[in-house]
Amino acid sequence: MPRIPAPNLSTRQAAEARQQQLTKPAGSLGKLEQLAVTLAGLQGRDIPLPLSPAITVFAGDHGVCAEGVSAFPPEVTGAMVANFVHGGAAISVLARANQARLEVVDAGVASDLSTLPIVHAKVRAGSGNLRHEAAMTRQQAEAALEVGRDAARRAIADGATLLIAGDMGIGNTTPSAALICRLTGHGVEAIVGRGTGVSDAGLAVKRQVVADALARLAGQTLDGHGVLAELGGLEIAAMAGFYLEGARQGVPLLLDGFISTAAALAAHAIDADIAPWLLASHCSQETGHALALQALGLSPLIDLGFRLGEGSGAAAALPLLQQAIALHAGMATFAEAGVAGKSA
Amino acid sequence: MPRIPAPNLSTRQAAEARQQQLTKPAGSLGKLEQLAVTLAGLQGRDIPLPLSPAITVFAGDHGVCAEGVSAFPPEVTGAMVANFVHGGAAISVLARANQARLEVVDAGVASDLSTLPIVHAKVRAGSGNLRHEAAMTRQQAEAALEVGRDAARRAIADGATLLIAGDMGIGNTTPSAALICRLTGHGVEAIVGRGTGVSDAGLAVKRQVVADALARLAGQTLDGHGVLAELGGLEIAAMAGFYLEGARQGVPLLLDGFISTAAALAAHAIDADIAPWLLASHCSQETGHALALQALGLSPLIDLGFRLGEGSGAAAALPLLQQAIALHAGMATFAEAGVAGKSA
Repeated sequence: MPRIPAPNLSTRQAAEARQQQLTKPAGSLGKLEQLAVTLAGLQGRDIPLPLSPAITVFAGDHGVCAEGVSAFPPEVTGAMVANFVHGGAAISVLARANQARLEVVDAGVASDLSTLPIVHAKVRAGSGNLRHEAAMTRQQAEAALEVGRDAARRAIADGATLLIAGDMGIGNTTPSAALICRLTGHGVEAIVGRGTGVSDAGLAVKRQVVADALARLAGQTLDGHGVLAELGGLEIAAMAGFYLEGARQGVPLLLDGFISTAAALAAHAIDADIAPWLLASHCSQETGHALALQALGLSPLIDLGFRLGEGSGAAAALPLLQQAIALHAGMATFAEAGVAGKSA
Repeated sequence: MPRIPAPNLSTRQAAEARQQQLTKPAGSLGKLEQLAVTLAGLQGRDIPLPLSPAITVFAGDHGVCAEGVSAFPPEVTGAMVANFVHGGAAISVLARANQARLEVVDAGVASDLSTLPIVHAKVRAGSGNLRHEAAMTRQQAEAALEVGRDAARRAIADGATLLIAGDMGIGNTTPSAALICRLTGHGVEAIVGRGTGVSDAGLAVKRQVVADALARLAGQTLDGHGVLAELGGLEIAAMAGFYLEGARQGVPLLLDGFISTAAALAAHAIDADIAPWLLASHCSQETGHALALQALGLSPLIDLGFRLGEGSGAAAALPLLQQAIALHAGMATFAEAGVAGKSA
């Protein structure tokens, strides 16, 4: 398989030079200047084109829900997939608002969703209970990664120039926290949070569950596939595959929140060349998201206190990326406008 | 003159109740939920309508530039107004990206702009040097406030349902800092910053200039008009008038950065009933902006490291407001979607 390419340093440098010539004090558009420069490098164009975003929401269920780690019952996963299809979920609204392609993929939902108009790629009906056993076999992890790669291929074939992976899976902050702990070395207290809103008692259980899962694997050497199989989820493995294929095809990846960043860390464990293709969008309210982003060398663009998943934080940030590009492309230079530069 | 109205408490409460019923964990859309609720109260509708934004950029020059307080020469004010008209400035690009009405008003530029297709409402050709004298007479301050009120009337008559005031005026972080210090009681060190990028030496001069201006008025009792006349600028006074008239007509006001917030503080000193109509957009990189917002009880939505003015930070945040409304209006309720609520 061809390798993940490197960004284009020369278009990046040309974009940096252009930013210094636009009619504003240098640096005064802050993070939007940096974004335009980054996208110039990733697109291989001095002036990047407006983005055609595609959002793929991967759904899966989690055996660990048996431990009482979520505030919502597991059957909500399937019901929310139906809500995506009917256009009533947050990500449905945000996809419309941002003219983004939206696809929903069943990578491993426990219930039967075969009557819904989604992509049916169920690897198994929910994962194993990672407190006591592997979430899935290595072969299932590889199959789930391939489900994600396929989704990236479809989105890119449809013209996508920016990929967003969303998640739907009741209980999935637990495997995500386990992955982040294992892959970054951070402790359970720093990473495990309340997810959709578990109580104090639920949070204590959740921390213990993650600690037990990590203890089960202590001292074992695991590669990226192995970590995903032991501690992941079917939708999380698919998201990692989606990211890996996007990067391989040279398409920027806009991360969402806690689950998305756990998937990106797993993808990074499989192929570290993915790093420059990952862009942070928001900082989730979920404990540990900021640390997970830091482990990837990323800093978020916005912090609106989101903790929803579905790709919603990334979708909400899309207009800022589009505006960064519009400013870079549409502003006049000092020379074009006949404006004097800085004097003191 | 009719008073500034109060927001509608009953539509606000209806919107709060609706947020609890939408298919997401309550609170999981963070600040966008609060924004939708606030806009429901301001619009007097349970489900607020999409916003029709109008941006008015007020331009003026500042006698205090003679003290060396800016990194750019004063003639840039007029040149940038021409750049607005020709569509090459940041605010030109952002207005187009957000389908916002854009108007430029000469409230007091030193140079002759009479050949440009803008609103000509020059009260005087640049302000006095506030280090040593009043920036303008009280009558001139009142005339500049009226220039802003007129602009708000035009925008609202054109259908605007959200108002953004932008600023263009080389040197205008100095009067803004002086206004903020006087109106909040914060000291010069906490409030005076580098503006468009003044050097260490320039910053020291700027702090001394503001300290001298404040000392000149120490012990004097001044009302809002008086503070604007002594320490303001022509475009800043016009922005304050723009805000006051917008609020009087029940139209929400989206603040921009340091200059905009100084104008809002002055407007608040004239009529404190304006408070609920003020919405924060971004936190500027300019020292003291966060404290100025706090003094108005506001917390910013985003912090992208902007320090440009022109209304650019407010315009960049517009899609977040539109998305907050789209989510509030377009998401299904738990009952509509047949999704179970929180169980634990």
